[in-house]
Amino acid sequence: MEARSLKKLFEQVKRGKISSDEAVQRLRHLPFEDLGFANVDHHRALRVGMPEIIFGPGKEPKQLAEIFARLAEHGRNVLATRVSPEQVRAVKRRFRHAESHELARAITLTRDETIYGKGRILIISAGTGDIPDAEEALVTAQIMGNEVQHVYDVGVAGIHRLLARREALTQARVIIVCAGMEGALPSVVGGLVGVPVIAVPTSVGYGASYNGIAALLGMLNSCASNVTVVNIDNGFGAGYVASIINRLE
Amino acid sequence: MEARSLKKLFEQVKRGKISSDEAVQRLRHLPFEDLGFANVDHHRALRVGMPEIIFGPGKEPKQLAEIFARLAEHGRNVLATRVSPEQVRAVKRRFRHAESHELARAITLTRDETIYGKGRILIISAGTGDIPDAEEALVTAQIMGNEVQHVYDVGVAGIHRLLARREALTQARVIIVCAGMEGALPSVVGGLVGVPVIAVPTSVGYGASYNGIAALLGMLNSCASNVTVVNIDNGFGAGYVASIINRLE
Amino acid sequence: MEARSLKKLFEQVKRGKISSDEAVQRLRHLPFEDLGFANVDHHRALRVGMPEIIFGPGKEPKQLAEIFARLAEHGRNVLATRVSPEQVRAVKRRFRHAESHELARAITLTRDETIYGKGRILIISAGTGDIPDAEEALVTAQIMGNEVQHVYDVGVAGIHRLLARREALTQARVIIVCAGMEGALPSVVGGLVGVPVIAVPTSVGYGASYNGIAALLGMLNSCASNVTVVNIDNGFGAGYVASIINRLE
Amino acid sequence: MEARSLKKLFEQVKRGKISSDEAVQRLRHLPFEDLGFANVDHHRALRVGMPEIIFGPGKEPKQLAEIFARLAEHGRNVLATRVSPEQVRAVKRRFRHAESHELARAITLTRDETIYGKGRILIISAGTGDIPDAEEALVTAQIMGNEVQHVYDVGVAGIHRLLARREALTQARVIIVCAGMEGALPSVVGGLVGVPVIAVPTSVGYGASYNGIAALLGMLNSCASNVTVVNIDNGFGAGYVASIINRLE
Amino acid sequence: MEARSLKKLFEQVKRGKISSDEAVQRLRHLPFEDLGFANVDHHRALRVGMPEIIFGPGKEPKQLAEIFARLAEHGRNVLATRVSPEQVRAVKRRFRHAESHELARAITLTRDETIYGKGRILIISAGTGDIPDAEEALVTAQIMGNEVQHVYDVGVAGIHRLLARREALTQARVIIVCAGMEGALPSVVGGLVGVPVIAVPTSVGYGASYNGIAALLGMLNSCASNVTVVNIDNGFGAGYVASIINRLE
Amino acid sequence: MEARSLKKLFEQVKRGKISSDEAVQRLRHLPFEDLGFANVDHHRALRVGMPEIIFGPGKEPKQLAEIFARLAEHGRNVLATRVSPEQVRAVKRRFRHAESHELARAITLTRDETIYGKGRILIISAGTGDIPDAEEALVTAQIMGNEVQHVYDVGVAGIHRLLARREALTQARVIIVCAGMEGALPSVVGGLVGVPVIAVPTSVGYGASYNGIAALLGMLNSCASNVTVVNIDNGFGAGYVASIINRLE
Amino acid sequence: MEARSLKKLFEQVKRGKISSDEAVQRLRHLPFEDLGFANVDHHRALRVGMPEIIFGPGKEPKQLAEIFARLAEHGRNVLATRVSPEQVRAVKRRFRHAESHELARAITLTRDETIYGKGRILIISAGTGDIPDAEEALVTAQIMGNEVQHVYDVGVAGIHRLLARREALTQARVIIVCAGMEGALPSVVGGLVGVPVIAVPTSVGYGASYNGIAALLGMLNSCASNVTVVNIDNGFGAGYVASIINRLE
Amino acid sequence: MEARSLKKLFEQVKRGKISSDEAVQRLRHLPFEDLGFANVDHHRALRVGMPEIIFGPGKEPKQLAEIFARLAEHGRNVLATRVSPEQVRAVKRRFRHAESHELARAITLTRDETIYGKGRILIISAGTGDIPDAEEALVTAQIMGNEVQHVYDVGVAGIHRLLARREALTQARVIIVCAGMEGALPSVVGGLVGVPVIAVPTSVGYGASYNGIAALLGMLNSCASNVTVVNIDNGFGAGYVASIINRLE
Repeated sequence: MEARSLKKLFEQVKRGKISSDEAVQRLRHLPFEDLGFANVDHHRALRVGMPEIIFGPGKEPKQLAEIFARLAEHGRNVLATRVSPEQVRAVKRRFRHAESHELARAITLTRDETIYGKGRILIISAGTGDIPDAEEALVTAQIMGNEVQHVYDVGVAGIHRLLARREALTQARVIIVCAGMEGALPSVVGGLVGVPVIAVPTSVGYGASYNGIAALLGMLNSCASNVTVVNIDNGFGAGYVASIINRLE
Repeated sequence: MEARSLKKLFEQVKRGKISSDEAVQRLRHLPFEDLGFANVDHHRALRVGMPEIIFGPGKEPKQLAEIFARLAEHGRNVLATRVSPEQVRAVKRRFRHAESHELARAITLTRDETIYGKGRILIISAGTGDIPDAEEALVTAQIMGNEVQHVYDVGVAGIHRLLARREALTQARVIIVCAGMEGALPSVVGGLVGVPVIAVPTSVGYGASYNGIAALLGMLNSCASNVTVVNIDNGFGAGYVASIINRLE
Repeated sequence: MEARSLKKLFEQVKRGKISSDEAVQRLRHLPFEDLGFANVDHHRALRVGMPEIIFGPGKEPKQLAEIFARLAEHGRNVLATRVSPEQVRAVKRRFRHAESHELARAITLTRDETIYGKGRILIISAGTGDIPDAEEALVTAQIMGNEVQHVYDVGVAGIHRLLARREALTQARVIIVCAGMEGALPSVVGGLVGVPVIAVPTSVGYGASYNGIAALLGMLNSCASNVTVVNIDNGFGAGYVASIINRLE
Repeated sequence: MEARSLKKLFEQVKRGKISSDEAVQRLRHLPFEDLGFANVDHHRALRVGMPEIIFGPGKEPKQLAEIFARLAEHGRNVLATRVSPEQVRAVKRRFRHAESHELARAITLTRDETIYGKGRILIISAGTGDIPDAEEALVTAQIMGNEVQHVYDVGVAGIHRLLARREALTQARVIIVCAGMEGALPSVVGGLVGVPVIAVPTSVGYGASYNGIAALLGMLNSCASNVTVVNIDNGFGAGYVASIINRLE
Repeated sequence: MEARSLKKLFEQVKRGKISSDEAVQRLRHLPFEDLGFANVDHHRALRVGMPEIIFGPGKEPKQLAEIFARLAEHGRNVLATRVSPEQVRAVKRRFRHAESHELARAITLTRDETIYGKGRILIISAGTGDIPDAEEALVTAQIMGNEVQHVYDVGVAGIHRLLARREALTQARVIIVCAGMEGALPSVVGGLVGVPVIAVPTSVGYGASYNGIAALLGMLNSCASNVTVVNIDNGFGAGYVASIINRLE
Repeated sequence: MEARSLKKLFEQVKRGKISSDEAVQRLRHLPFEDLGFANVDHHRALRVGMPEIIFGPGKEPKQLAEIFARLAEHGRNVLATRVSPEQVRAVKRRFRHAESHELARAITLTRDETIYGKGRILIISAGTGDIPDAEEALVTAQIMGNEVQHVYDVGVAGIHRLLARREALTQARVIIVCAGMEGALPSVVGGLVGVPVIAVPTSVGYGASYNGIAALLGMLNSCASNVTVVNIDNGFGAGYVASIINRLE
Repeated sequence: MEARSLKKLFEQVKRGKISSDEAVQRLRHLPFEDLGFANVDHHRALRVGMPEIIFGPGKEPKQLAEIFARLAEHGRNVLATRVSPEQVRAVKRRFRHAESHELARAITLTRDETIYGKGRILIISAGTGDIPDAEEALVTAQIMGNEVQHVYDVGVAGIHRLLARREALTQARVIIVCAGMEGALPSVVGGLVGVPVIAVPTSVGYGASYNGIAALLGMLNSCASNVTVVNIDNGFGAGYVASIINRLE
Repeated sequence: MEARSLKKLFEQVKRGKISSDEAVQRLRHLPFEDLGFANVDHHRALRVGMPEIIFGPGKEPKQLAEIFARLAEHGRNVLATRVSPEQVRAVKRRFRHAESHELARAITLTRDETIYGKGRILIISAGTGDIPDAEEALVTAQIMGNEVQHVYDVGVAGIHRLLARREALTQARVIIVCAGMEGALPSVVGGLVGVPVIAVPTSVGYGASYNGIAALLGMLNSCASNVTVVNIDNGFGAGYVASIINRLE
């Protein structure tokens, strides 16, 4: 228990081993965590059902597998994002049951299959190029204990395909929309539903799309009021924030 | 009842007044709303407790007051944003009980004081220049039926002031953070809590802040995973989306 | 007749007054227009039904009225764009029948009411802020002899309103779409029809809309193949190019 | 026939098998396409002479060949754009008569050689670097049933070469101009003719040309009113829109 | 004394009024500042000779004068930056001896004339347009207790004027260089001296200077290794940081 | 004679009044200009026929007139650029013969009417909005002793108007081209002539012209090799550099 | 002789074989060059001493060597820029005496060693990274018949190195300055001399140098009036324009 | 002794070998350094303890080793930055004791282990991606004779980790903060301490981080007044400037 040092300090004062003034002085030199302050942060980590998360890039395959193994000891789900095939192989060698998600560039280890989300998260992607971001969001939302549905290929230039899915739209509690090009889809979706819509601009596109900036600007300027935006290609962030919204009781 | 035209069509077929083929043909020429499709949209508007919203800029004071009056007839709360002093006076002349919110550049008429939100929305602003956006978010969240708390003046260069408010942080169900300059506050807040954080970049700043772009980029690149972003100075959008998150059951 | 100098030259050669070599030499010193080359340009100006066009900004009201009067002598329709109220008054003083179009910031004089367009031009605007550009396009298309229809207030966040106008969509030969914010409307419209769509980004919007750049980028990245783009707020250009498309036989 | 479900519904009402109220209810749960609404979209696809189009990037050669084959069954022309040599080989293995267009990075299968265009489409390119975009436009326009002419190497710094082609200019019904560098050519061409000019900025250039942005800005700011713009390197889009303009009766 | 609450807590434990466990619990609910943590921040404010600083914009003249008066009670120097003439008058009415610095847009009240800086701060400005920023830096450095020298009008296009001041250059302990246009002066100065150079890009310039961005980029890319940069027009920041460098013992 | 101090130093050494070592020491403390080094700079100022130049903005009318008067004493021509009407009046009050150039926003005093240029400088402007820059270039070139010709209104969308002036083109020794919008004119001109072309981007334009950036980029990317560029609206710089080129013997 | 067709036309008129009217008609259908108009362009190419120029990128080695050979037949100097080692080898195989300039990425064939320039061209480069651009300028200026001098490694952060070369500075008739990073060198040089300075921004630099944009902006905003700018890394353009300035008589 | 030429000149005058006038003339043709002027620059190089510095990129391994060897003869410490593994091997072959710093991409040779810094330099890095820049700063500061401490992994989204290091914070005399993403860390650190903070934006990040621009803007807009900024990834510059600040007596 992290408050042990604190308690010990009070005990010493009580038993007269140190004066109050001395105690105040010592208290100030205790490591920060002993002050119990860290629990502002830890109480988040301790919440049930939160996975352990590893960001893949820049880590040696062996090193990543090592971190993966260490975190797996905590008994929670583990998610590594943006992993290379080499990193996947290194993890697989140690965890036969770890699942590789190729399109999502992720690898997961499922220890806890409880559903923590109160409703369903719907993920919509406009074109084939948006699928990696959408899948990253999907894998993230699943490992965080949500029921997830993915609707593909419903770009704004074929609006009837989106309208045909109105049942999926009306049944979701949170919606993630991944779109590149002009980034118009979140506005259209936002106008059709009354729940929070999280927009992911994808770096798909040609010419003046500027690796997702056109989509990002389009989404920030959405005329639908229920749309918020995450960074370009940040499917993980969208899945994460959708999950914590979906957990709200 | 909007399905009336549809029903009438079926009745005519039933009574043999028109053939099935003719009915298919006619159905395609019915106004769109008669198809019952619009309810995808309307079911949002019909949800209890949603206010009527008017965007002020570009509207004549008289014209705005007129729209305000017409919407007020629906019996719901009314919110007009980005209103000029002239527009406020025009509304006040017709609705003595309408409340003007100077800092928020808004005017509201409260008809329904029910609290629809499940928890508390916390609004944090970094500096005095961020207050207009924060107040716009606050007025929006209140008129939409939420308990709201506003914590002022807790910029990242004086981090102890933020930490001193940890009680407010831990009691919120959704948090809105308004910040200009480097836009760092949402990351710090996001790291301290486990609930959704909505970041509002404000156009406050000098030199290379570019009317909020520096803040916007800072927020999009947040290293906290529970942060999403709305457009620069879009306090209304933040208040709106926080409200619909806070209503989720 | 502009070829007079040329003909005279040939006559002189014929009559032996100058040698062929001398003629070649002289020909090279004739003013350019005498070479008949200018008709590449003039044959455009001479096409029936093309109006005289004046760009208002930077011209003294009196000076503009003077140019207006001089052009009016040609007997064709006259259109002055981006005119100030002072410029309008100056023209009105000389031409009682000149029509002022306030929203479009234009003034016209109609001499020729022939319809030159083969079909109907449809102009769609997303929000109230897009109306000035839409009206400029409308006035331009009308003075150039087209049947024009204007559909208002059909933004992408209320897609059913657009779908409700499908008859107007299917009856147009050319469509102009004016939109600010995320600039998504032209893509949606382009996906619904098979005719050319001309997109006008409008400088309406807040925060990161950057006076129309977000809309411009959105339109350039449209996923509908029948969309081309003109400059921000260039309603005149859209009306002009729609007219020449609509004249094609 | 797509209205079958609808008709069946009316028949059931007629025969008293279901009530009108029930019919209204069921109608709302029919798949979207059954509502006949999709024909807003399909009537475009059904227009004679429109090719099937595949966008190459991101598709496995085998997968692309598979899609190509499936679409070829419809009996229309097929066009795959931005294809890699591997994709070309995969298609060629299945369709010996498919034509590879190396410069245009495209492969086509011609089933229908009818000319649908009313006039000639002229494609002008400024430098050798602009040829890939120009060829993409050319292949697109040809497979869509147009007579096409391509004029090469007529940059603005050698204006006499353009003027020497005035016959080609005056005989075109629609003109596509591909240019990198300063993007000035469309303005010059636009000033010489009275028909629609579609400008394609190409990503050719050095230093401050920024992969086509300088050209794009130049074209958007064209002082010729008959110029519209497509995205950088979007030769396909230019060819497509030129084709639908050229089909207008 | 701020540790009073803490001490009291220990005393209560000592006297057996509360248990150790209870004490740990209470400690966590003490206001943050009572934890003594705030002194990380306060120990800066308490350092001798630091002035009280007020940022003028957005404050009512009366309100600013009020804040000014309240801070003046602390007995330290007071500096208000970016003040309007109205704000100056409001302060002057209460403090006859407050000094207005028109060019620097600042007002100061000097209570403590001690020199805290170890050496001289040299401020160099390139053109007349750079003087406001330079003066803001100068006033800031003076009120913070430094000996300051200002060298005017030594732009890089007249390099002999700078070289003529080499004595001033070699006698400075810290140098501030304010420059607009191409922002080259800090590099030249940095190459001539061995002390820290703080570069202030100024928003002076025409055409493609973009309100100081050209200068900012020039300074960031300086080929002299002893140059660091502050924000555009941030003369105050430069004066502040130069002062704390100059205080280092 | 500026070397006087130096000579005196040598004389003192010669006469044995000071030692050589002392002389070396003193030499290093002579003001920079006395070292004769300044003549690198001054020999430019001393070249015959160079005018005195004053940059107007930011100077009080009275102060500007004062500087004007002081410089006028040197007996050379005087040029003040970017002057306001108030500044013009202040100068006029002291110099009845000073000439105000309204369009060029300049005022000049001619003392020396010698023609120093070896040939003619041609100034070409595309539209009426480019005239202020062109006139500034013209006034600058004239006051620096050049024969100057100005050709108006020859934009690239009416290329025949430029070609009609080929005589003017072939007779110029240096050409200045002012153009806004797409900035294409310098390329066309550069391709027609063999002399240096100086391009001035003007801040004229609408929408995505960005106050001259589109024109600037267009000019930097010119495909004509004899084109160099000055800053946006820097007509003075173009006139200046054209003059020094035209003086080269 | 290009006027042959013209002369023939006059002869036919003279001999009465065709009427004057017919001749006017025919004249308009003659190829453009026959009209003698092309000489506006050709008279540049015909000026003595101008080299043949080939732009390397995008050309097959064999194809480039072919073009090189064809142009070499004209008897003038030949310059190929931006050539790859393969292209160099292909040319060398056909022209043993062709000179490869590795740093300049160029290959030349010298047929005419006449000096056409009236004075000396000085090329200054700031750092080692600027040398490729400087060498390209040098090779271009040499092959165009100029006496050229190159001064290396005189960046602004070591200003004494530049000042030490004042003899070279004062002896040049035209100066080219290549600089990356902050692009300050041309301003310093421009302030030291009275001749035209052509600035070449180089794409050298790190961080926020943006491949030469920082340098480009710095140069455009130069406070020296005798500086003009070419595109980033356009050493060829600088060498070319310096040459035509240096030829002016 | 560098003044030798000067002294000799005075001696000659003294001995009557040359006249004073002649001496003035000769003085002007002495190489710049002989004028003693260079010592403005050299006195920096001569300061004790400054290392020799080599910038690696673009240098052949052999050539770099050669320069390294030559500089090593001066007896001072040697630092080569941004070196490739090949360059490291080439240096190692000649200097067995040279130390390679892989993460910092640097190689050093330590000759002088004196501590010149007056206090400790603290280097803080936010994430693992910021370590290369931090290590470059560290190696630079060490080779320049400073006591250095490096605190890793204290990003703003886990603020307690930073607060836990408050002892390190309060003991530093200068602080370097390396951060990518939103660049918020320097503001937080700046608010906690009273010493100069040098911010290094790192090019780490995804989506809209733009290779460090988001971080750079965030740092320039820091709300802490003791923060200055160096270029993106310029760890060397930060280490250098921190060192010269730390040497100030």
